[in-house]
Amino acid sequence: MVLVRARNPNNIGAAARAMHDFGFRHLRVVNGYAVPFESARSAVDASEVMAGAVAFNSVAEAVADCTLVVGTTAVGERVLQHPLYALPEAGGMIGGALTGEGGRVALLFGSEKTGLSNDELSHCHWLLTIPMEQHEQVRHPSMNLGQAVAVCLYELVRSAGDTNESASGGAAKTAEAGDVERLTALLTEVLEETGYTKRHPANCEEGQIRRLVLRTGFAADDLPVWMGILRQVLWRIRRGGES
Amino acid sequence: MVLVRARNPNNIGAAARAMHDFGFRHLRVVNGYAVPFESARSAVDASEVMAGAVAFNSVAEAVADCTLVVGTTAVGERVLQHPLYALPEAGGMIGGALTGEGGRVALLFGSEKTGLSNDELSHCHWLLTIPMEQHEQVRHPSMNLGQAVAVCLYELVRSAGDTNESASGGAAKTAEAGDVERLTALLTEVLEETGYTKRHPANCEEGQIRRLVLRTGFAADDLPVWMGILRQVLWRIRRGGES
Repeated sequence: MVLVRARNPNNIGAAARAMHDFGFRHLRVVNGYAVPFESARSAVDASEVMAGAVAFNSVAEAVADCTLVVGTTAVGERVLQHPLYALPEAGGMIGGALTGEGGRVALLFGSEKTGLSNDELSHCHWLLTIPMEQHEQVRHPSMNLGQAVAVCLYELVRSAGDTNESASGGAAKTAEAGDVERLTALLTEVLEETGYTKRHPANCEEGQIRRLVLRTGFAADDLPVWMGILRQVLWRIRRGGES
Repeated sequence: MVLVRARNPNNIGAAARAMHDFGFRHLRVVNGYAVPFESARSAVDASEVMAGAVAFNSVAEAVADCTLVVGTTAVGERVLQHPLYALPEAGGMIGGALTGEGGRVALLFGSEKTGLSNDELSHCHWLLTIPMEQHEQVRHPSMNLGQAVAVCLYELVRSAGDTNESASGGAAKTAEAGDVERLTALLTEVLEETGYTKRHPANCEEGQIRRLVLRTGFAADDLPVWMGILRQVLWRIRRGGES
């Protein structure tokens, strides 16, 4: 569970309480300011979860050891560049990833007011949304943070009970986010060195390349091969005309 | 939705907001004291629901026009004299009752601290409980009222939608074999031009590169981008030292 830019410590406490209720442990918080853990710790029944909470400076660091990063969104006007699943379906998919070998899943919640930014979303493999009533007068529907967390975790517990049999046999292990980030950096370097960035700037805006890499879903075992190929490309270009 | 002896007006507001989010309207409140609707009305997005809220003096009056009365419980030490269902199952049963002719269902939530009393429970046809983690040190597990309401209403919406078939279909279309073959050929060219093939011959035996590409599972929509990147790499290498 990763809370990004949560504005209200009471909401962090409420999220922690929901985690406690449904048996989840690892709370990570990404915030520009020092997180007022003390006030959040006062939330009823949340003390155990809050005691283990860890603060990070960036989404990249917070999800570095995760194999699946799922963002939550209320789907406002923003154009989404990610696959989007309704929570009931997403719950099963996350359950499958968790039962996979060594799978660690990060579930990202954005600020109560603005949700996740495009840059923050670019770290996500895909997005989930809680099906809500559409009210005409409200442009950006959004739930109370603690309630949204509770509903998502309930669905995860529910799905786990539903389909313990879907052991996802044989699926390749997905690369961890930290490795994906390194691949993205290397690919970005290649795009710049080759002049691709100049020629197709629209494909290279911030987050675009990361999303491209995440969508493609490189397997953990293949990552060294892809990294090796990119390094070889860079080496060859930099050696230049000496051939 | 009937809130019985809710102690904190903020919680009434939170419950109202959850009702708003999931599209429920009829909030009824049973309280010995005058309900401080004013402070509850300040809850974000809850105004419409709060405006229609009605106060009753007893559970009996609050549920008088309902055909099914369901109590919520955290199942403490109290001996239950009612059939008890876990929420996922209860959701379907309530959905069935709602679609029945003229069916009106009351969902009762008790006080945050003590839940529903035996007398209040006696108005219920049956009970539902939200499946929660069992913590040894906690005798009376209970959820935050707003979160409990949100989870229950989510399940009701979910159960109603279960049969409606999930329309979402956001999964990325996988590339066709012919396109995969073209990508493989282009990648092979890059590997040769960069000298990768010579350096890592074991990775480049027949079929190795195709399998690498197939395992990676490029999405159909992204294929032109990847092809473009590889073509740019080739162009840059062949242009060589002219830079």
